[in-house]
Formats: sequence, C-alpha cells, structure tokens
Amino acid sequence: MPDIEVMSYTHSMQLRPRYGETDQMGFVYYGVYAQYYEVARVEAMRHAGILYSDIERSHGIWMPVIYMESRFLRPAVYDELLTIYTTVPEIPQKEIRFRYEIKNENEELINGAMVKLCFLEASTQRRINAPDFISESLRTYFK
Amino acid sequence: MPDIEVMSYTHSMQLRPRYGETDQMGFVYYGVYAQYYEVARVEAMRHAGILYSDIERSHGIWMPVIYMESRFLRPAVYDELLTIYTTVPEIPQKEIRFRYEIKNENEELINGAMVKLCFLEASTQRRINAPDFISESLRTYFK
Amino acid sequence: MPDIEVMSYTHSMQLRPRYGETDQMGFVYYGVYAQYYEVARVEAMRHAGILYSDIERSHGIWMPVIYMESRFLRPAVYDELLTIYTTVPEIPQKEIRFRYEIKNENEELINGAMVKLCFLEASTQRRINAPDFISESLRTYFK
Amino acid sequence: MPDIEVMSYTHSMQLRPRYGETDQMGFVYYGVYAQYYEVARVEAMRHAGILYSDIERSHGIWMPVIYMESRFLRPAVYDELLTIYTTVPEIPQKEIRFRYEIKNENEELINGAMVKLCFLEASTQRRINAPDFISESLRTYFK
Repeated sequence: MPDIEVMSYTHSMQLRPRYGETDQMGFVYYGVYAQYYEVARVEAMRHAGILYSDIERSHGIWMPVIYMESRFLRPAVYDELLTIYTTVPEIPQKEIRFRYEIKNENEELINGAMVKLCFLEASTQRRINAPDFISESLRTYFK
Repeated sequence: MPDIEVMSYTHSMQLRPRYGETDQMGFVYYGVYAQYYEVARVEAMRHAGILYSDIERSHGIWMPVIYMESRFLRPAVYDELLTIYTTVPEIPQKEIRFRYEIKNENEELINGAMVKLCFLEASTQRRINAPDFISESLRTYFK
Repeated sequence: MPDIEVMSYTHSMQLRPRYGETDQMGFVYYGVYAQYYEVARVEAMRHAGILYSDIERSHGIWMPVIYMESRFLRPAVYDELLTIYTTVPEIPQKEIRFRYEIKNENEELINGAMVKLCFLEASTQRRINAPDFISESLRTYFK
Repeated sequence: MPDIEVMSYTHSMQLRPRYGETDQMGFVYYGVYAQYYEVARVEAMRHAGILYSDIERSHGIWMPVIYMESRFLRPAVYDELLTIYTTVPEIPQKEIRFRYEIKNENEELINGAMVKLCFLEASTQRRINAPDFISESLRTYFK
C-alpha cells in the first residue's frame, strides 16, 4: 500500500488590509490584491528556505510576473484578518505558478487567483529555467 | 448589400508611468496595471458619455470588479508614453467586460488584459442588470 | 519624592517592505511611508485598546490626516525588517499627534516623522474634540 | 529703472484622482499626494527642458526625497479636476526644493506642501551639488 503522497506545497499567512488599500466603496481596491499575492508568495518561499531578496542579490536572477488571473468573489474590508493560502502546484521548470485562496474571518472564500512568473538572468534579461536551488527546496514537498 | 457593421466600442488614451510605479527591477510593478485599466475604462466611458462618478452618485450603482486576467508580455518603463486601447466587446447585460491592449512608444504590445465588472445597487449591495443609460450610450457603437 | 512619571505612549511594531513598494533606485518609494505611519498608528491604538475600525463604525467618527512631516535620512530596502516606533506625545484634545521613528536592522534611524489627525463627525463632517474613549484609553500612559 | 524680475519658476498641471486613490472615507488617501507631487515636479522639470529619466540614465544622478511637509486643508474627491501648482523657489545648490499648491475645481486650496530632494551620484551614492544642466535650465526663470 503506497504512502500518502504530498503533491504540492501550500503555505498560509495572515494580513490585515490597510486603510489606504480601501476605496470609496469601502472595499479593498481590486488593484491591491497583486501586492497581497506578492507578499504571500515571498513568505511561502521564505518558509521553504528560499529568500527572494537573495535570488536577486546573490544569484542575479529576476522573477517578473508574466500572467495573473483573479476572481473577486466577496469584498474584503478594512482591518479584517485575511488568511492567504499559497500553493505551488508543481516543481517549477520554465516558469513557476502560484495559486491563491484568500479567506476572511468567517472562513468565506473571497478571492481565488493564479500568478505565473518566469526566471530572467538579470544581467542579460534572458529567460532561463528555474534554478536548481529553487527546484530542490521545493522538491521535498513533492515526494 | 449590408453596411459595414461596427461591432464593438474602442477608445484609446495615453499615460506615462509614474516613478513610484516602478520597482527595483526598473519596470512598472505588475500590481500597477489594475490602476491603468481603471483609468482607461473610466476615460473610455467618459468618451461615450458615461461618467463613472455619476453612476455612483446619481444612480446609486457600484461597479466592482469580479474578474481580471492579465498577460505581461514586455516590461513598461518609467516615463515612457504608453497607449492603452480599451474595448467594450459587447453591450453589457449582467456584467460588463473591458479588453485592454497596452502598447509602448515603439508600438510593441506590452500587456493584454480583460476585466469584468458587475453592477450592484449600492443601497442593498444586490446585483442588478446593466442600467439602460449605460447600455444605450454604448449601443450607438454597435450598430 | 515623586514617582517616575510616564509622559507619553510609545508602541513599536515591525514590517518588511513589499517588493511593489520599492522604486527603480532600489529604495522604498518616499510615498509609501505614509502607509507605514498609518499601519503603525492603527497598531499603536489597537495595543491601547482602541480599534480604529470601531471609531468609524460604532462611533461615526472619521480621523483624516491634516498634517504630515517626514525626514528621509537613509533609504529602506526591500524585505529588510523595519521597526517603527510610534509615540503619542500628549493626550489628544482638538487633534491627535503621532511621532514616528523608523529603524533598520542595524538600528540606524532611517526616517523621522510627525502626523497630525483631527476628529470629524462623519454624518456632518464637522470637527469635534477627541472623544472621551480615546483620551481615557491613552490617559493611563500619561500619569 | 530695473526690469521686472522673475524670482521663481512656477508650472501648473492638472490631474484627476483615480478610483483606487480614494479610501473608505470617500476622499483621496493622504498617502497618494506624494505621487501627485512627484508627477507635478517631473512635468515642471520637463517644461523647463529637464527630463528626469535623462538625469538618471544619461547623467547617472539620482534625486531621492530627503524631506516632505504637507498640509491637508480640504479633501480631494474621485475624478474631480485638480490643478497642481509647482514652484521652484530658488536655483538649486546642494538640494532642490519644490513648493506645491493643489486647488480643486472651485479654485479652493486643498493642499499645500514642500518637498526637498538631494542629488546623488548613482554609482557611489555620494551626495553632489546640483548639476549645471539643471541649474542652467532653471536660471532663465530667475533673472
């Protein structure tokens, strides 16, 4: 009988919307979520032992976003405690995908999203494959 | 023989990325584009005779974004003159869709996107159909 | 012989600059600090038992900023751990003042600021004095 | 008899607050004004023949903000046409100062501010004096 297999890496974190992130509807502005996704994937990577600031500084690699898709299901409001679940659904090769689910204090799903980033050699701005230290750090979650 | 039919409404506007909109890669941050889409659709509606501020204030209708999809094809850089093409591909019913193409000064496509908004009665926060004054203002472009 | 007197209320919190908060100099954009001040004063008030969201929702009071002054002494960079010290230097009457000092991981002072807010009755948008529940919550720190 | 002397350089421009720049009070968020000041000084310099993007790219000079002071006199609201008056009160030497007045459609003063920037040699991050091409471009307005 096979062991249960872990097939993806998921990390969660919490944050409170800032006042300046609301708009005059009283909701978090839809353009703010991209920042939440960024913060969440940086924390997810940190938890897996990967420092994004190091990827840039020590490895000379940039990770620009090439695709984003977002569904806004319910509004988020000022100062409520949001939980952001970040999943890396597969070991990255040419690009890395992050899936997001954001839930409010009532555990209602308010937002679902997917963001895709590629890897650039900063000096040449040429696309490269996912560097080994990223793939290897994530591989432990996919056995 | 039929007349040539106009089947959508397209509007274009220009803007320059602000310094604060760049990030340390030297590109416009991916989270900023949502603001560009917002500005562009407000100007597109204004050109068609629809004031978004009026929709809220005089008609008590909110238009929250319910879906966004964005492809980042090339980076945008500080202060370059971007042209944003906004298209309303059909007369809105339950929701309104806006398609975007953003081109740089070399007329290269740097971003393609789609944003979907719904209509809420602000007082009840219930979804309603597109109000007539919006559909009618757009209908002239679809005959 | 008098007891030692506590003459102000100081609270500290930590945050990491987000990637989207940097600019192409590689520093945190100067316009972002206002958000840090806001987050820091909301947390300082929360620690003193005052929920800003409650001030608005339950008491119908708005607290718009009427004055801000900021000195940028050293740059802040992406993802470093900043400590923000927030001080309320006196019990508020017509307005409330917050003083800020932001230090980096080397405990160097990178920013000093002062922000002044007033109190508005939201329904009339008339200025009022600091409500008692705010003054009283802070008074314990000033005896 | 002396000629009338021009003793400062003033430029004006207009912009409309974006929806995402409002907060749940229905006003433009106080943290947004720093972006308006930035846009206004870049346009003021462009009008005087100085391209900020060129200062960085061709001259290797950065101009970080070292001081900002802002008085918020009246709220700004979504989509109204604001006029921003930018004044350079003296020919820059070690630093350059910009004074701002922002007026709404009723020509009421809603904000007054002052922002001070210094000059850094980007390669060394050492402070330098205002480069000649900036001083000279402005001198014509001060004779």
